[in-house]
Amino acid sequence: MIPEDLTQSQFDTVYNLLSLVIASQLFTAVFLVLVLPRVLPRYRQALVIAAVVCGIAAYHYFRIFDSFKDAFVTDAVGGRGTYTQAEGASFNEGYRYVDWLLTVPLLLVELIAVLALARKVQTSLLWKLVPAATLMILLGYPGEISTSDNVRVLWGVLSTIPFIFILYVLFVELTKSLDRQPAQVRTLISRLRILLLASWLVYPIAYALPLLGISGADAWVLKQGGYSIADIAAKAVYALIIYRIARLKSYADDP
Amino acid sequence: MIPEDLTQSQFDTVYNLLSLVIASQLFTAVFLVLVLPRVLPRYRQALVIAAVVCGIAAYHYFRIFDSFKDAFVTDAVGGRGTYTQAEGASFNEGYRYVDWLLTVPLLLVELIAVLALARKVQTSLLWKLVPAATLMILLGYPGEISTSDNVRVLWGVLSTIPFIFILYVLFVELTKSLDRQPAQVRTLISRLRILLLASWLVYPIAYALPLLGISGADAWVLKQGGYSIADIAAKAVYALIIYRIARLKSYADDP
Amino acid sequence: MIPEDLTQSQFDTVYNLLSLVIASQLFTAVFLVLVLPRVLPRYRQALVIAAVVCGIAAYHYFRIFDSFKDAFVTDAVGGRGTYTQAEGASFNEGYRYVDWLLTVPLLLVELIAVLALARKVQTSLLWKLVPAATLMILLGYPGEISTSDNVRVLWGVLSTIPFIFILYVLFVELTKSLDRQPAQVRTLISRLRILLLASWLVYPIAYALPLLGISGADAWVLKQGGYSIADIAAKAVYALIIYRIARLKSYADDP
Amino acid sequence: MIPEDLTQSQFDTVYNLLSLVIASQLFTAVFLVLVLPRVLPRYRQALVIAAVVCGIAAYHYFRIFDSFKDAFVTDAVGGRGTYTQAEGASFNEGYRYVDWLLTVPLLLVELIAVLALARKVQTSLLWKLVPAATLMILLGYPGEISTSDNVRVLWGVLSTIPFIFILYVLFVELTKSLDRQPAQVRTLISRLRILLLASWLVYPIAYALPLLGISGADAWVLKQGGYSIADIAAKAVYALIIYRIARLKSYADDP
Amino acid sequence: MIPEDLTQSQFDTVYNLLSLVIASQLFTAVFLVLVLPRVLPRYRQALVIAAVVCGIAAYHYFRIFDSFKDAFVTDAVGGRGTYTQAEGASFNEGYRYVDWLLTVPLLLVELIAVLALARKVQTSLLWKLVPAATLMILLGYPGEISTSDNVRVLWGVLSTIPFIFILYVLFVELTKSLDRQPAQVRTLISRLRILLLASWLVYPIAYALPLLGISGADAWVLKQGGYSIADIAAKAVYALIIYRIARLKSYADDP
Ligand SMILES: CC1=C(/C=C/C(C)=C/C=C/C(C)=C/C=O)C(C)(C)CCC1
Ligand SMILES: CC1=C(/C=C/C(C)=C/C=C/C(C)=C/C=O)C(C)(C)CCC1
Ligand SMILES: CC1=C(/C=C/C(C)=C/C=C/C(C)=C/C=O)C(C)(C)CCC1
Ligand SMILES: CC1=C(/C=C/C(C)=C/C=C/C(C)=C/C=O)C(C)(C)CCC1
Ligand SMILES: CC1=C(/C=C/C(C)=C/C=C/C(C)=C/C=O)C(C)(C)CCC1
Ligand code: NA
Ligand code: NA
Ligand code: NA
Ligand code: NA
Ligand code: NA
Ligand code: NA
Ligand code: NA
Ligand code: NA
Ligand code: NA
Ligand code: NA
Repeated sequence: MIPEDLTQSQFDTVYNLLSLVIASQLFTAVFLVLVLPRVLPRYRQALVIAAVVCGIAAYHYFRIFDSFKDAFVTDAVGGRGTYTQAEGASFNEGYRYVDWLLTVPLLLVELIAVLALARKVQTSLLWKLVPAATLMILLGYPGEISTSDNVRVLWGVLSTIPFIFILYVLFVELTKSLDRQPAQVRTLISRLRILLLASWLVYPIAYALPLLGISGADAWVLKQGGYSIADIAAKAVYALIIYRIARLKSYADDP
Repeated sequence: MIPEDLTQSQFDTVYNLLSLVIASQLFTAVFLVLVLPRVLPRYRQALVIAAVVCGIAAYHYFRIFDSFKDAFVTDAVGGRGTYTQAEGASFNEGYRYVDWLLTVPLLLVELIAVLALARKVQTSLLWKLVPAATLMILLGYPGEISTSDNVRVLWGVLSTIPFIFILYVLFVELTKSLDRQPAQVRTLISRLRILLLASWLVYPIAYALPLLGISGADAWVLKQGGYSIADIAAKAVYALIIYRIARLKSYADDP
Repeated sequence: MIPEDLTQSQFDTVYNLLSLVIASQLFTAVFLVLVLPRVLPRYRQALVIAAVVCGIAAYHYFRIFDSFKDAFVTDAVGGRGTYTQAEGASFNEGYRYVDWLLTVPLLLVELIAVLALARKVQTSLLWKLVPAATLMILLGYPGEISTSDNVRVLWGVLSTIPFIFILYVLFVELTKSLDRQPAQVRTLISRLRILLLASWLVYPIAYALPLLGISGADAWVLKQGGYSIADIAAKAVYALIIYRIARLKSYADDP
Repeated sequence: MIPEDLTQSQFDTVYNLLSLVIASQLFTAVFLVLVLPRVLPRYRQALVIAAVVCGIAAYHYFRIFDSFKDAFVTDAVGGRGTYTQAEGASFNEGYRYVDWLLTVPLLLVELIAVLALARKVQTSLLWKLVPAATLMILLGYPGEISTSDNVRVLWGVLSTIPFIFILYVLFVELTKSLDRQPAQVRTLISRLRILLLASWLVYPIAYALPLLGISGADAWVLKQGGYSIADIAAKAVYALIIYRIARLKSYADDP
Repeated sequence: MIPEDLTQSQFDTVYNLLSLVIASQLFTAVFLVLVLPRVLPRYRQALVIAAVVCGIAAYHYFRIFDSFKDAFVTDAVGGRGTYTQAEGASFNEGYRYVDWLLTVPLLLVELIAVLALARKVQTSLLWKLVPAATLMILLGYPGEISTSDNVRVLWGVLSTIPFIFILYVLFVELTKSLDRQPAQVRTLISRLRILLLASWLVYPIAYALPLLGISGADAWVLKQGGYSIADIAAKAVYALIIYRIARLKSYADDP
């Protein structure tokens, strides 16, 4: 699925987007660490996890960026030519699944942690969300690396089951536990869930693209762009809303 | 627009200026983090953002510096010869727009945050400034990468609309909210706005250069120099004035 | 024992697993440093050691990862071919023993430290566990680098003596000192010991593989995978349980 | 002025001295950050600036070191031969002026800050010292890069005017403000000024060497050595004396 | 004295030992910074210096490691062959003297600082130990780089004079000041001095090896190993004992 050739403008687009993700994730992590003392101790766990998630993403994007630079080369003066796949180097998409395996469960922990629910409710939610998230990623992987459409469909469907379960827990079960949250916080949590839904949907859609016969360099560039924007939304922007919630709740608890 | 050749002295000038920006931004960021405890908690948000902005700029200048070093090469002993564009490597100007997309809105947030205005006023100002800044950068980009003068003019004009709107908000609307600020702070804010105006104007002027037929290696070196100085003024010097304001207000609030 | 060739999929599997370990260890270390203030001072020593252990592991996996990348090369476009051993570069397995020499004793110190036992009991346990752990690693090394099966068996058996002694101290002696721990903590310590047992057993098993005639690229990839998972379990997951214990005990001591 | 050839021993001398400066500046910066809490808040500004100055110097010496390694090469086995200038790489002396532009004014700010004089006196001294220091460096640069002796003399003389002015302010004007300082502090400040004088004089002397016809590889190695020692004295040792003063004054203010 | 060839096993031994020193020094430094708040402020100066010493050593070992990797090369597949000296790269032993010049005086400061003696006694001891340590290293260097046995003997003897003086101060003079220390601390200080004596003796012995006609690859590998173990003992283990002393004294001062 990795294109044979990229035009300079395609190459530059992916190149700049990957660098944008590095900067966004890295400095969101730095920001979160620096503002940690600005929320009450009971909300810091959520912020620490958010910082760790963005840090892990920055690490993976550094690798993806280097992998991309090594994988596509040109001989043209000033780089003004067609970029082709290099000898001996591959663009490693595997980093994404490695990243998701670590960060997707943590994104859910982060959300539950900032709510500071009763310990029992919290434990029960986490025991549903974390295994489901891990399962979702693990089940998707064999489909991703397969070259057969049928295999892709099969594992994709299996992976969608925990995905839907996660959405159910977040949009139905969690709602019941939100009455005690201040009104402003409830609004923010709604927004957060919509952001989560919108950004997470990008991943199964990207997964389905080859099944829909959408391929070629343009589609591939679009997919990389989609991943980049979705990753910024699902981790960095998400973290900033978590911080906003933590600030509001800190103020509500100790005005 | 990237010149075919650079003399050694042109090469060295750009090289040293880019390195100067790295050092300035990186160590302003470090300085701000270290002095964070020296201002009252309510002004720390502004300083954290200022540090993050300078950190993001340092990151991008590390990339721009490496990109420049790879893009221009010579065979001359001791580097004492003409530098020409390398095969297979380009000088990536795209980093600048990626940088602006993240940092220009944050520079405005930083300013509003240090004033610690009433929450309502603050929210209303940010909802004007941040979208306008984002729009300004996004609208400028298609013009920047276009090779047609007409396209450049069109997007340049479109991008200038939010630019003028930002200046209006800063110089007219914001002024109304400054009565409660201590006198010394009002002076500093005036200086800050002049610095902002003077440094920000560099960017549309640099954008217009090719339209004015100003090109060639010398003009390009001048443009890189202009960007470098403007970036130091608009981020590092700006941040130090923000710090100064935060110190004065901390003292005024709790002498 | 290092295979002559790896298929691309074998190469990618090892590559991604090594990177997974880097991210896991590095960010567990970062996490532990950031949550340090969330436990009482008397439990911080344990967390600092846990962070140091994960940091040391991250350092060694950075090296192992680079060593692996240099040691296996291909000429195939897009890396889609067979990877063979490079000229002039070796995959250095030695890093693992260097790592263990430093981290295995520290893992035991970490465990004893979090229990905050009476000083006398603590000292007596450490004087048994730390020398035994050091001895176990030092005795295993000559067997590991030997090409003779007999030598391997001999040193393997010698190294197993302190290994069994460590298990005895942990599962028999330590148990006597656990009455004063809160109930929840006792459960966690049981889990921790099972995790320790399960993950530590991977190492002598991997050591024995060549004796059992299990070799070839597939076995080697499996061994690298086993090491990776065991290292994450024995250091990162282990550290998170230590943190959990420290939180519970902090709460029990000062609710 | 850069020599065509260096013997191995000349190469090694410069190499080791540059690395010595990196280690000295970097770890003085680290030390200052770590001891920050050991002085009263009112002296921390001085220490932060001192740390930033040493950090900036470390950054530039990393660059100078790499530039030196790339600029001189040999084919001899074990590097036991003559090092000659490489093709395509230059030893970039420009880093020094970039460094001075940032750090020389800050060294003076650091000194004034640690005295914690009355705000008015402080402002008046800084408005003299900082512009003079900046001017001194800027005026020296055109002479440094010129190949004409006359031009070198001219700009050298111009640059010496602010240099003498700085010395006047430090040794005459500042003295008047020192009565309120504790006796031990006055002694330290005297020593500090002598250190400053002795180390700063190295730079105009090095500047004058080519005018005195002193050139060749030996003179060049001596100059690099002189710069290295002077940089350690003027920044790292200087910073440690500043720290000493801050400690003494902290104790005097709050025994 | 650097051997022409190394067998793979000799190469690997040195390689792994150098990496072991990096990990030990780097993470001892990290550990010390993290436990800083666990001792009373009056003992933190000692810990900060200990951390800086280990940090400086880690920096130098990173350099020594890279220098070693560049200096010895092989063409053999999988690196399974003889390593010979590379063209154009040397193994730079000079880093060691640069390291000692900075760290050996600091090791003595570290020891005096943790004792928290009366200020007068402390100053008097430091004015003896620090200049003697600096002199010892400076006097040893001309002998180290000389190829003449006589010169080596001469400078070696001269360097031994301050060495013996240091031992005299530590073992005779210092003893008089130890009555006020708690008993446990006195025991630890005795151990510390023995560790110091045992590890420091390695350096003059290594210096004397060529005079004793001990040379060749095996001797060289042994020397590198000796330096590595001695450096870990003299800096990292030493620092951990200093920390232990600081903890005991903190407890004695404020139980
Ligand atoms: C449902 C589904 C998938 C879901 C993936 C998701 C939901 C990934 C989320 C990633 C995030 C949030 C990353 C943040 O940076 C797969 C595995 C593609 C396989 C196909 C079916
Ligand atoms: C009006 C205008 C522009 C404005 C750019 C600005 C105002 C950029 C500011 C950048 C800053 C402040 C960077 C700090 O480092 C563009 C996009 C060039 C396009 C042409 C019209
Ligand atoms: C008994 C035994 C061994 C035990 C090794 C162990 C128990 C290693 C543990 C490593 C850990 C916990 C690493 C964490 O990342 C050896 C040396 C293989 C040699 C054969 C006999
Ligand atoms: C008077 C004079 C000069 C002075 C330079 C000085 C005083 C530099 C100080 C540098 C320091 C303190 C660096 C610290 O690391 C120049 C520019 C060489 C030009 C010739 C005349
Ligand atoms: C007496 C003597 C020497 C002593 C060296 C010493 C004592 C070095 C200590 C180094 C340490 C402690 C390093 C820590 O990492 C020399 C210079 C070899 C020269 C020969 C005579
Ligand atoms: Na490329
Ligand atoms: Na991702
Ligand atoms: Na170049
Ligand atoms: Na910029
Ligand atoms: Na490879
Ligand atoms: Na390991
Ligand atoms: Na070189
Ligand atoms: Na300098
Ligand atoms: Na090598
Ligand atoms: Na050393």
